[in-house]
Amino acid sequence: MTETIDFYFEFASPYGYLASLEVDDLAAKYGRSVNWRPFMLGAIFKVTNSAPMMTIPIKGDYMYRDVARCAKLMGVPLTKPEVAPMNSLAAMRVFYWLLDQDTGKAVSFAKAIYHAYWGVGRDMSPVDAVLAVVSDLGVDPLAARVATQDAAVKEQLKRETQLAIDRGAFGSPFIFVDDEGYWGHDRMHHIEHHLRHGGI
Amino acid sequence: MTETIDFYFEFASPYGYLASLEVDDLAAKYGRSVNWRPFMLGAIFKVTNSAPMMTIPIKGDYMYRDVARCAKLMGVPLTKPEVAPMNSLAAMRVFYWLLDQDTGKAVSFAKAIYHAYWGVGRDMSPVDAVLAVVSDLGVDPLAARVATQDAAVKEQLKRETQLAIDRGAFGSPFIFVDDEGYWGHDRMHHIEHHLRHGGI
Repeated sequence: MTETIDFYFEFASPYGYLASLEVDDLAAKYGRSVNWRPFMLGAIFKVTNSAPMMTIPIKGDYMYRDVARCAKLMGVPLTKPEVAPMNSLAAMRVFYWLLDQDTGKAVSFAKAIYHAYWGVGRDMSPVDAVLAVVSDLGVDPLAARVATQDAAVKEQLKRETQLAIDRGAFGSPFIFVDDEGYWGHDRMHHIEHHLRHGGI
Repeated sequence: MTETIDFYFEFASPYGYLASLEVDDLAAKYGRSVNWRPFMLGAIFKVTNSAPMMTIPIKGDYMYRDVARCAKLMGVPLTKPEVAPMNSLAAMRVFYWLLDQDTGKAVSFAKAIYHAYWGVGRDMSPVDAVLAVVSDLGVDPLAARVATQDAAVKEQLKRETQLAIDRGAFGSPFIFVDDEGYWGHDRMHHIEHHLRHGGI
């Protein structure tokens, strides 16, 4: 049994945002730490004939109402973003570039991107918007800009995405505990049951 | 404010089955009763470019694992059906035919169909399988067989389905409380919050 749990997420996903606010505390409660792993959902959406929920007729309108209700019950900020879905490529690349240097910094960056996008509603697609977050964390934005075009970083994001898909992830958030996958923020209580009892 | 809540469901939906086991008790706890309303999801699936979840690659396999976990935590029977998705047309028509005569009988019938299909795993698509359930409830199966081809009954099912879609239902279960819609068995706690506080 591993001592970590794997948290796969897409910055464009509001349910990933909600999970990001709880996953560390939940894991810590049971002596685990969390591997934060952003991944590109687009590839798997083709296999499952799916799309970002906010882009689907009728479902999209419902999603915003549901997310607002979830956030209200959790007592966390939620703002409908000015642009949705965001293009999270730059943010994901910067994440993996940071992860290579400092795990804590990478997680702080992910939380800051999520807060800016889903908490405040600012578009985090532009590289410049991502670099502003980087600066706030005391990281050199020029180096981060170079990283967004670095071949090794691009390759790492592709590799992590493929690994997530190979393990069965098809949505965000997708959390693996002892290799058992749980889809959706609404399965946090299943994850807690698994952590407490070793499975369901 | 109405004293009822509207429970839209598809017999082929396992999450509808799980909700069917809780919705009456939840409503009763807050002095409400439930309008049980089966509806045909196929029409709305075309609009949302969706399909029964068990038929989608990767997602389908996940769904059965998730439903099994949900059922285990609830302590209710769950068997992967021999045929999925079932064709629920006959069952839905018999439901509305019964509803016209006796609401309690119609609800008992719906629960029996759900139990036979998702609890025991028997295919409930064939008219004969549906009529066997009808017989067990002390209703004349010959009259029920005629009802499955009755023009007025067919029309009523279409009307209820269109009403559900017009109200925004696009999945099963879909539950309306004071005209606010909640999608999914995993939103029962939202529904309870609404019933307790008058909204979220």
